[in-house]
Amino acid sequence: MSDQTIKPEVVSGTSDLLPGDAIAFNSMSSIIKEVYESFGFVPLDTPCLERWGVLTGNKPTTKSLYRVNIVTGLEDKGVDASELASGDSALRFDLTVPLARIISSNPSLPRPFKRYQIGRVFRGERPQAGRKREFTQFDFDTIGSSSIVSDVEVIQVMYATMQALEIPRFLIRFNTRKTLNGLAEMVGIESKSTEFFRIIDKADKIGIDGVLAELQRTPDNEFDESALALSGEQLSVVSRFLAIKGEHADSVLSSLSELVKDFPSKSAENGLAELVSIASMLKALNIPEEYWNVDLSVARGLDYYTGPVFETVLPDMPELGSVFSGGRYDGLTNRFIAGSNLPGVGASVGVDRMLIALKKFRPSILKSTLTQVLVSVFNEELAEESLLLASELRSAGLNTEIYLGNDSMLRAQIGYAAKQDIPFMVILGPDEAKNGTVQVKNMRDKSNNVVARKDCITTITSALS
Amino acid sequence: MSDQTIKPEVVSGTSDLLPGDAIAFNSMSSIIKEVYESFGFVPLDTPCLERWGVLTGNKPTTKSLYRVNIVTGLEDKGVDASELASGDSALRFDLTVPLARIISSNPSLPRPFKRYQIGRVFRGERPQAGRKREFTQFDFDTIGSSSIVSDVEVIQVMYATMQALEIPRFLIRFNTRKTLNGLAEMVGIESKSTEFFRIIDKADKIGIDGVLAELQRTPDNEFDESALALSGEQLSVVSRFLAIKGEHADSVLSSLSELVKDFPSKSAENGLAELVSIASMLKALNIPEEYWNVDLSVARGLDYYTGPVFETVLPDMPELGSVFSGGRYDGLTNRFIAGSNLPGVGASVGVDRMLIALKKFRPSILKSTLTQVLVSVFNEELAEESLLLASELRSAGLNTEIYLGNDSMLRAQIGYAAKQDIPFMVILGPDEAKNGTVQVKNMRDKSNNVVARKDCITTITSALS
Repeated sequence: MSDQTIKPEVVSGTSDLLPGDAIAFNSMSSIIKEVYESFGFVPLDTPCLERWGVLTGNKPTTKSLYRVNIVTGLEDKGVDASELASGDSALRFDLTVPLARIISSNPSLPRPFKRYQIGRVFRGERPQAGRKREFTQFDFDTIGSSSIVSDVEVIQVMYATMQALEIPRFLIRFNTRKTLNGLAEMVGIESKSTEFFRIIDKADKIGIDGVLAELQRTPDNEFDESALALSGEQLSVVSRFLAIKGEHADSVLSSLSELVKDFPSKSAENGLAELVSIASMLKALNIPEEYWNVDLSVARGLDYYTGPVFETVLPDMPELGSVFSGGRYDGLTNRFIAGSNLPGVGASVGVDRMLIALKKFRPSILKSTLTQVLVSVFNEELAEESLLLASELRSAGLNTEIYLGNDSMLRAQIGYAAKQDIPFMVILGPDEAKNGTVQVKNMRDKSNNVVARKDCITTITSALS
Repeated sequence: MSDQTIKPEVVSGTSDLLPGDAIAFNSMSSIIKEVYESFGFVPLDTPCLERWGVLTGNKPTTKSLYRVNIVTGLEDKGVDASELASGDSALRFDLTVPLARIISSNPSLPRPFKRYQIGRVFRGERPQAGRKREFTQFDFDTIGSSSIVSDVEVIQVMYATMQALEIPRFLIRFNTRKTLNGLAEMVGIESKSTEFFRIIDKADKIGIDGVLAELQRTPDNEFDESALALSGEQLSVVSRFLAIKGEHADSVLSSLSELVKDFPSKSAENGLAELVSIASMLKALNIPEEYWNVDLSVARGLDYYTGPVFETVLPDMPELGSVFSGGRYDGLTNRFIAGSNLPGVGASVGVDRMLIALKKFRPSILKSTLTQVLVSVFNEELAEESLLLASELRSAGLNTEIYLGNDSMLRAQIGYAAKQDIPFMVILGPDEAKNGTVQVKNMRDKSNNVVARKDCITTITSALS
């Protein structure tokens, strides 16, 4: 007990999940887990704490990491704090680097290795809307396969997940980095591709005209490397590329194919072939075309991905952005095993966003309790009877709570059940105990049913079904 | 890609869960979750990061905490690192302080409030056997109930959990702090009770004679406060108390009752009454007495608990210590709301220890995969056929992997299935495709079965059941 009380606040940029949200989160994650497992992904779990060098590759990083230091009261116990020195520990910022560490240190894992992981990640960002300092990622990845089938599988997993979550409308958009590299080749701007892609990636925000204007800009001075000063001819290729849209993949791919014929590029050809293969397999799998499309504007993390890239958007909630994204990358483990060049492909659910979508489309996922029955406690004498009855209800598979409050008034107990939206209450008072009966109260329709004690379970289970 | 490779090591005192252990961990935690929920506990989730003041109550602490600082590359981006200052953040060391914070800041939560939480906690300890720097806790607590029924419920949950986990032999031992306070009263050492309990608590390690010798010790000098110099008469009371053992609760309680008659003490009387009530309810619940007993040597965190204390030990693995422990405590939220004096009771699974026990008693819980079928891929041409078949198997509820390796040799694919212990393989080569058949390979008995493609699912499901 302290005279000076502490404010019960969270660290800014972090948040709690109170029961309603936590129940929704748990049902969401168990559905996703089942889908991942149905495709052969196995779970993996790694610590939040990682070595500084493991996270950064011992290179300067532009990420804001949490470095972790031990502060101790142990000096009093004669323990030298320097023994505990831990400045080389930090909190992970994603689940991909830990995956690379695991693969590098466990050569006996199967190849390809397919794993999923759910876990907290930490970013030392300035807290602001949509940017949290601690949040959950839910990744799946296939490591060591360069087969296009593993790219298709990412889309399959996304589709199966969205279906299992019963999100009514969604669109999986995909592209490949190779078409974007191809565009740079067609335009002849490969040497400045990073800047080029940075501008292209703005299309969603500033529109195609905005992108073209920026690509056309001439340098303000000799140090202005961001100005690419593209010619009219170059701009017309970019413009034609960005204008390629279609209701279905076939029309997008045939427009792209025509562009590639007019402006040959090896990368674009490879990219086109990749997209054609993926689309063909998705059709063979009978995944309805309303749920997927090729979209050449999808770029996703230009520095990181090297092949197909995927995202999932909700037409009814475009403001959410992508709720499920990923792509193919290379060289995952090179930091640990030089030259290992392992290919990888995977995706990650935007857990916070998906939860927002689920709360909108399936509000029933938000519950204040999972309890189905509250058993009243009349007095200490009858408590044993109530305990036994609750235990029997549980054995019959019903989540059953016994009233533990300090208020023995029946009204308070009914209020407790009502507040938590518990559908049934069983009342066991002295009369009922004497007569071998119980009162079954349906909290939804307020009906009261006096039944023989032995019929209590069937009364509730049949009302629930 | 770096010239200087990094060692793929974990922070000392932390560890990974590779797939086998992670699968076992997941099945363990979903079983425990179901039990907790069946008793009306709802989930809650809180960040790993908490404010320094929240964790320590702004008082000097003897715990070794991880203080967290943001290290950033953002200076380059013109962001002032002081904006990100976060030295007031730290990693939580348990799940109880966050629970207190939540209750204090959410007055609308029901009372009593019953929650469970699974999460990582962090201790800046010197790593050593059995002491980890990051580990998982899995708690349940009832806040705001002083009813003895909520104490009994802790034992019920422990019993139901151990049964659900199918641990063959276990013993839930319980006591109450009041009997220990009572002993201090009987001996007349209340003013030095902290030191007294510290010595009593060593009984497991140094034996009763060791405890008595230490209690008898006279001070070496005037500053030696740890020497209690008990008289022979005092020692005989302690000795009689510590000698109380019995195969069942009744004999323990009757010995305690006799001691209390000979050396009256209010606390001991209250403690006895508590233990008698709990034992009576456990009997009413028909929980077999082989699974529980009163044990006056159980103390568990003497500074913390104020009423009943519980622990669960495995007679076949005594070296593990308690795998599931808890007790009643008071004043949980006083740090945040002065004088709130909320009572609480709960317990926590020793997740690491429980996993060790499960791996011993139920080795089948350790699996290298959850996949039931591997579908081969013969070549890219037949990949679509394989994809479709795998998708159909999944729709039939079978966890199905398609082979994604770069090796198209059937032998490599069979090796992959064997390595991961996948029970069935479906082979779809050019002959099978032409004939409308598939080969179903039972990886356990090595049998091969050519069946019509349409009978593939039933062949596997009937073999699995």
